[in-house]
Amino acid sequence: MSVTAAKGFTAAGIAAGIKENGNPDLALVVNNGPRRAAAGVFTANRVKAAPVLWSEQVLKSGQLAAVVLNSGGANACTGPKGFQDTHATAEKAAEVLGVGAGEVAVCSTGLIGVLLPMDKLLPGVETAAGQLSEHGGEKAAIAIKTTDTVHKTSVAGKDSWTVGGMAKGAGMLAPGLATMLVVLTTDADVDSETLDKALRDATKVTFDRVDSDGCMSTNDTVLLLASGASGLTPAYDDFAEAVRQVCDDLGQQLIRDAEGASKDIKVEVINAATEADAVEVGRSIARNNLLKCAVHGEDPNWGRVLSAIGTTKAAFEPDRLNVAVNGVWVCKNGGVGEDRDKVDMRYREVHIVADLCAGDATATIWTNDLTADYVHENSAYSS
Amino acid sequence: MSVTAAKGFTAAGIAAGIKENGNPDLALVVNNGPRRAAAGVFTANRVKAAPVLWSEQVLKSGQLAAVVLNSGGANACTGPKGFQDTHATAEKAAEVLGVGAGEVAVCSTGLIGVLLPMDKLLPGVETAAGQLSEHGGEKAAIAIKTTDTVHKTSVAGKDSWTVGGMAKGAGMLAPGLATMLVVLTTDADVDSETLDKALRDATKVTFDRVDSDGCMSTNDTVLLLASGASGLTPAYDDFAEAVRQVCDDLGQQLIRDAEGASKDIKVEVINAATEADAVEVGRSIARNNLLKCAVHGEDPNWGRVLSAIGTTKAAFEPDRLNVAVNGVWVCKNGGVGEDRDKVDMRYREVHIVADLCAGDATATIWTNDLTADYVHENSAYSS
Repeated sequence: MSVTAAKGFTAAGIAAGIKENGNPDLALVVNNGPRRAAAGVFTANRVKAAPVLWSEQVLKSGQLAAVVLNSGGANACTGPKGFQDTHATAEKAAEVLGVGAGEVAVCSTGLIGVLLPMDKLLPGVETAAGQLSEHGGEKAAIAIKTTDTVHKTSVAGKDSWTVGGMAKGAGMLAPGLATMLVVLTTDADVDSETLDKALRDATKVTFDRVDSDGCMSTNDTVLLLASGASGLTPAYDDFAEAVRQVCDDLGQQLIRDAEGASKDIKVEVINAATEADAVEVGRSIARNNLLKCAVHGEDPNWGRVLSAIGTTKAAFEPDRLNVAVNGVWVCKNGGVGEDRDKVDMRYREVHIVADLCAGDATATIWTNDLTADYVHENSAYSS
Repeated sequence: MSVTAAKGFTAAGIAAGIKENGNPDLALVVNNGPRRAAAGVFTANRVKAAPVLWSEQVLKSGQLAAVVLNSGGANACTGPKGFQDTHATAEKAAEVLGVGAGEVAVCSTGLIGVLLPMDKLLPGVETAAGQLSEHGGEKAAIAIKTTDTVHKTSVAGKDSWTVGGMAKGAGMLAPGLATMLVVLTTDADVDSETLDKALRDATKVTFDRVDSDGCMSTNDTVLLLASGASGLTPAYDDFAEAVRQVCDDLGQQLIRDAEGASKDIKVEVINAATEADAVEVGRSIARNNLLKCAVHGEDPNWGRVLSAIGTTKAAFEPDRLNVAVNGVWVCKNGGVGEDRDKVDMRYREVHIVADLCAGDATATIWTNDLTADYVHENSAYSS
């Protein structure tokens, strides 16, 4: 159901010819109101793509009427011309939808350093506008895929209001955020400040803790639009929980579709002195190439986990560290623990628990294994 | 010539049976004086192997009579028993050499979390002591190999004094330091304070800027021993330069032997506001898995370089960044520059220059590409 699960939204997804292979590459999401509140979270990368610079700007009003998304080109590192192209895209959408360009966000994904084929993109916006539908969410989700093998959608809610969304992303996943484009919609009657708070609270513990390969993108964007069409204003906690659920579900779908991955790795850090310590340790473990290779080989190599913990500034004593892999405490008190032959790593999900024995804070980071397929997919073999 | 290039040193390398395949696995380096000054630099990892904890302690006196090194086991994460084993190793060497155990450093390399076979190691120390020779440097260098495909030695010096050394390391190379064991010797008549300063100055710009896979080891040790046997005390600058040369040469040999690598990548950051900025940016580029895959595929993907720069806190403006790959400025002013088809990446060495346009500081970080062979070597296929 994607972005059209919530009342008040229409969407479309078409093939505009931006991708040379003719696959769908342009999506349009429209908020038909009555409310048009919106919030956004963007990449922490200081090299930001033109659509990110544009969308950050228009979001300052807390209002969005529509979002145009394209795959087939990131429009990043494209200079002033790239920014003009994003502006022209928003103008075109504004014109055909009868709204202001300052109410239109733009998201792009694909190769960096290449200008978009505007002669195809602009007519595509018009075509997509002609196909807008309350059932268009699925097609929109398909049109934003790049190396994604599946499209990703999710829905949550309570009583008679809904939060729904779509995501794209399959690599370059890293905190602050992954290379992901995410559009969430809701028919709850919520103002932009509330949307902003709920979105930041949710991304902090979901997308920001998905770390596929430690590489941060120039284009990451997560938008949340509210139509108010349900006429209901949920309690904040209920609403925030629904947003978190959808973000969590989409984040899981991103990890499961990570490039070349054969294992999804849940790194759970427990008994940390602070949540920040837990996140730092979790990220350090999740980014350790040697550990990621070991997991690929179904080798419960806890020495790699300890080495990774040792590079952090978190509070811990080396001789009090414990590590479990799939429920077996292979490392106890910083040394050999239970028999590592008891660890069963045949299944796709691998669960690593790092016990810091330094407090009661916890955090979970998701990553995946490092495989020869990842290397192949990201070397020139595939380009 | 290795550690016995300088006068006053003897060494040996033997197969003690620590490695199951019967390869050489135990080295002994002895300083016969007249001086026995020494300095050391150790891993910044907070999870330190027993031999690191021991050697840090004995180095506090600024004196070393001998170094025992073993491959075939890291003696890391081995608890109190592991530390006792290191202590026993030093005691054994002290006994057979007629020195104090507090003058014996110990270095170990190999798998983490496994106790050393002391019933083989201790007799091995005695055997090695019986084979000490002024020509033993080569054998010592061979005995410390793990996944190294070649042994690594280097010599520098001036007039009638010499600095020589040996290194082992082939993966887990990372700043603060790589998984490397390095023993340097000199017959210059230099006190331990001078040795310490020269060694820290040298490692800071050599081993600390070799970053094979971003993973920091529990065992890294670099030792510098002075016998004073030449009777000469060089000017500090001359001596420091010789130490830097040997460290630089050995560091290059480590990168060229990195696990699975097909390309050596020299990341040179120029026009940074500060040297710290240059190092931070260089490291971020050198650790970007997507870039490392692209280089493997001979793809001059400058977008990956900009994405990596963008994750740092260094001073720069995105629209003033320039990037050259093998002499071709493929990115100018943050956007498309010269024709990327002009870039020739057929050879093993790849030179990436990142121009931050923010000052006049510079730094060079060495890394290598990410390959399917790296994945295979570090997954259970190889263990």
